[in-house]
Amino acid sequence: MSDYKAPVRDMKFVLNEVLAADRLLATMPGTEEVNEELINSVLEEAGKVAASLLAPLNRSGDEEGCQFSDGKVTTPSGFRDAYRTFAQGGWIGLAGDPAYGGQGMPKMLAVCFEEMIMAANSSLALYAVLSAGASLALARHGNEELKQAYLPRLYDGSWSATMCLTEPHAGTDLGIIKTKAAPQADGSYQVTGTKIFITGGEHDLTDNIIHLVLAKLPDAPAGPKGISLFLVPKFLPDANGEPGERNNLGCGSIEHKMGIKGSATCVMNFDGATGYLVGEVNKGLACMFTMMNYERLTIGLQGLGLGDASYQTAAAYARERTQGRAATGPVAPEQSADPLLVHPDVRRMLLTMRANTEGARALAMYVGSQLDVAYFHPDEQARTRASKLVALLTPIAKTAFTDKGFEACVLGQQVLGGHGYVREWGQEQHVRDARIAQIYEGANGIQALDLMGRKVVHDRDALLDVLVDEIRDYIKAEQNGRASPFIATLSKALDCLVSTTQWIRDASAENPNEVGAASVAYLELMTLILYLYMWSRMVSTASEALEKGASDKDFYTAKIQLGCYFLDRLMPRYKALAEEIKAGSDVVMAMDAAMF
Amino acid sequence: MSDYKAPVRDMKFVLNEVLAADRLLATMPGTEEVNEELINSVLEEAGKVAASLLAPLNRSGDEEGCQFSDGKVTTPSGFRDAYRTFAQGGWIGLAGDPAYGGQGMPKMLAVCFEEMIMAANSSLALYAVLSAGASLALARHGNEELKQAYLPRLYDGSWSATMCLTEPHAGTDLGIIKTKAAPQADGSYQVTGTKIFITGGEHDLTDNIIHLVLAKLPDAPAGPKGISLFLVPKFLPDANGEPGERNNLGCGSIEHKMGIKGSATCVMNFDGATGYLVGEVNKGLACMFTMMNYERLTIGLQGLGLGDASYQTAAAYARERTQGRAATGPVAPEQSADPLLVHPDVRRMLLTMRANTEGARALAMYVGSQLDVAYFHPDEQARTRASKLVALLTPIAKTAFTDKGFEACVLGQQVLGGHGYVREWGQEQHVRDARIAQIYEGANGIQALDLMGRKVVHDRDALLDVLVDEIRDYIKAEQNGRASPFIATLSKALDCLVSTTQWIRDASAENPNEVGAASVAYLELMTLILYLYMWSRMVSTASEALEKGASDKDFYTAKIQLGCYFLDRLMPRYKALAEEIKAGSDVVMAMDAAMF
Repeated sequence: MSDYKAPVRDMKFVLNEVLAADRLLATMPGTEEVNEELINSVLEEAGKVAASLLAPLNRSGDEEGCQFSDGKVTTPSGFRDAYRTFAQGGWIGLAGDPAYGGQGMPKMLAVCFEEMIMAANSSLALYAVLSAGASLALARHGNEELKQAYLPRLYDGSWSATMCLTEPHAGTDLGIIKTKAAPQADGSYQVTGTKIFITGGEHDLTDNIIHLVLAKLPDAPAGPKGISLFLVPKFLPDANGEPGERNNLGCGSIEHKMGIKGSATCVMNFDGATGYLVGEVNKGLACMFTMMNYERLTIGLQGLGLGDASYQTAAAYARERTQGRAATGPVAPEQSADPLLVHPDVRRMLLTMRANTEGARALAMYVGSQLDVAYFHPDEQARTRASKLVALLTPIAKTAFTDKGFEACVLGQQVLGGHGYVREWGQEQHVRDARIAQIYEGANGIQALDLMGRKVVHDRDALLDVLVDEIRDYIKAEQNGRASPFIATLSKALDCLVSTTQWIRDASAENPNEVGAASVAYLELMTLILYLYMWSRMVSTASEALEKGASDKDFYTAKIQLGCYFLDRLMPRYKALAEEIKAGSDVVMAMDAAMF
Repeated sequence: MSDYKAPVRDMKFVLNEVLAADRLLATMPGTEEVNEELINSVLEEAGKVAASLLAPLNRSGDEEGCQFSDGKVTTPSGFRDAYRTFAQGGWIGLAGDPAYGGQGMPKMLAVCFEEMIMAANSSLALYAVLSAGASLALARHGNEELKQAYLPRLYDGSWSATMCLTEPHAGTDLGIIKTKAAPQADGSYQVTGTKIFITGGEHDLTDNIIHLVLAKLPDAPAGPKGISLFLVPKFLPDANGEPGERNNLGCGSIEHKMGIKGSATCVMNFDGATGYLVGEVNKGLACMFTMMNYERLTIGLQGLGLGDASYQTAAAYARERTQGRAATGPVAPEQSADPLLVHPDVRRMLLTMRANTEGARALAMYVGSQLDVAYFHPDEQARTRASKLVALLTPIAKTAFTDKGFEACVLGQQVLGGHGYVREWGQEQHVRDARIAQIYEGANGIQALDLMGRKVVHDRDALLDVLVDEIRDYIKAEQNGRASPFIATLSKALDCLVSTTQWIRDASAENPNEVGAASVAYLELMTLILYLYMWSRMVSTASEALEKGASDKDFYTAKIQLGCYFLDRLMPRYKALAEEIKAGSDVVMAMDAAMF
């Protein structure tokens, strides 16, 4: 099993060269001190933490799994110490609010860190990213008292957090949850109900666990507009802020799963547990969406990171394993066979993995940069514009990164043949661990519906126009530039997107089923366009660096070659997607339900 | 977890109505007695065996797995009894030679049975299908003495068999195997070497295990032309043909794998073990290919069967689970939510699974019918023509069924959301069990190379012409028939295939890397065309049945609706595949090996 190496060089390229991060960050109060030197040193430190602290526990954590006994969860050997060391490094609060002990780093840098820890050990990383996401929701929507009591403990990792949404009968459809919150005389609430699939609901890594729970007040309206958000700690803080009285909640069992076996997935029972309202009554879903949108991008990074980890093992194997001969004649005549890399189809698998991974990585940092603008930028118009891009791009990033990430893990397993199916090389674990990312945090089909329905067809904020205008401006500026073949296809594909969007808008006005019938193919069409947009920008930047005589010639040359592979071999699919969409919904809805 | 139900109705439709099996079988000596009544009763019995004997042990077999201790393998509880009962039913020799105790059933019927047992319990089924495949190789290439000594025991299931090809350094590249066979004075051989990934190499199901082993004679030429095939039994038969002296071979360990955990995957050590030559010296690879081609189709059926099993669970879940509301208004206003089936995207997943499954099932029986013609038909020209089709179609069937089968299992898991990721519903096991089918029996990339290289570009037998002519004749006969929209697309896609093939032939004459750069996309293009060919025939037949007032109206209507889904939503991809191929190999080969 080859060791994980964080893709620091590629991240520096995108952040510093393609996105010119320090120029952007310098313009915004709160990020002005984050310069290229700081970016590079955070990336390098993060890479070391991921590779040396988290990665070594990845396979043993899978083998051992979490154990449940008498309401207690024991995480795999080594997890507790590693988590403490990790937390003490300040990593959990990396992008946290400095007023409460966070490091205040921009999101465009934090996404790099999250990709690394997810790649190195998704199970262990999940405890951290849930704490970071819950902190964000609390920082945005909690009152001052809650923030002071909980944020410093969450940022320093002595406490962790969860998000409690799903119930046995209510997963995607949160409007029908049954968990109740009864108001108490002291302003607190008593929360009662059962939540399932709660990641990190119970474990032995931290001194306290803070649950963010969706529940309904007694008089709440039916459906999603009657949901409120509550903070429910495992131990109620005492007068000194230390974990005090045990709250009335507990873990009923943990799930036996396909993968992420070091992550405890819990059934949580709240039995009149004391909780505190976060945000306004009946607006809990909107507050929770702050955390959910954060986690959606982060879970996207899980797919991306695991795809990269799988690539690294597969590429190392293909360089070393000898089997067969090159079609053009032996390249290693002194050996009984040539390295796998001489075979075009082995390269196809590796290049497909990597072209999607590097396209996704650039897009992740791009989305991160828009999150930073939306939060830190002094100009309101700039913030609004960036918020619109984030709203549009979040479901795409979550779905694209996890679908292509899973596909990459499957390809990376295939490169190793039978050796990929046995446990030894770790490739089968990557497949199992990546699979969940397509399912949780809103299944990918739901993300596509969110994009197609809320963000495109029924949208009144012209979200799509912001993106289309940006890419059109880019095309105009670059059409005779260094990446002109990319620009030509990007222009055609964008026209295809615009006409297909119009077709769906028109068709769905007649028949609302057109939205759901088109959604997944539409998201995939958007993905191809966004990846091509990123590849165009990366190829331009790399070409410019080569022209200027950059020293790292091999890196830039490979980057351009990989971009060409994406353009020539992965992009042609976009036209078929438009055709599939325009086949319409009738053929999807025709069959009688009884005949399924 | 829903119960597996064998798709008997669909199989009857394809065999009896689409392929008119009994008319074909009546013309061939050896199969003339297999009429529709017999076909139907075999299908029904097979369905019962799969559902009631094998399926109940599927999950427990996965949970328990095989255990290895002191050279012995213990299969999961219940496997031994079920295997004995199964064998006593005569199922292992279903298509075996009646002269040695086989049932002599045609392959077009046997493929249905194999799909069922693979769907119900792949791990347990593997022991049986390896015995059946080894029997076939022995029946075709073994001498009379070997056949009399071994075939009856293999057919009645008291003994089982394996195929021993792979070595630690030699998987795909069998030319470099190191296992040696030293000739002995009595005409036998002493076989020495290590084989890995041997399915059923050791277990407790049968009284003896017969290994078919590839090895090299001391003076053998280098490469694939120096390989011979040996029969090496675990116990040497005594004078009465009963298991006697223990041979010098043993199991060193078993693999810990992603799935098929009830199937023992063994490291086999041969230490001067007594073996007997099968076929001619140095022609072992050709003899083994009789078994390998058999197993390739059978492993294809593993993908197909597991995809169907996953569909059945997903469809049952989608009918019952309520979540959200139909876009066109509630269909179950009395409940808090509508069934999942109201959502177009849930239907998309189910219809995609099923359209590929039913297309594959028809193609499996079509290939089975060609195998029957190739073996049983009295006319030599007919036999030759069928053999050519089989040679062309075997790598496609293996790859298409397993790739689409795995995709179906992933979709079937997705339909269940988080419930698909936990063990309880069995959907995650289907994904893990189906994954191996893309890897073993020649990884799918190798199948594509076999198709593109040996069977198309370097072929001197005009294999492709046989298929293209058949489909062209069909198009001519049916262009104004009941499935005319299918015929129109089939005609365009076939033209695309022909022109793309010519492009590859021309380009690869200049650059041999074009073969490997095109192969996987080419196989996928062929798959779409073959599935559409099958769907056209099924839709025609179903339409005719409806016109004639058939009683099973719902079945035929659903069949036509599913065909339309395939045509409109899955077929458009073919043009993109041609475009990807024509991008050529340069973009695949450009990157320096050191930069991977």
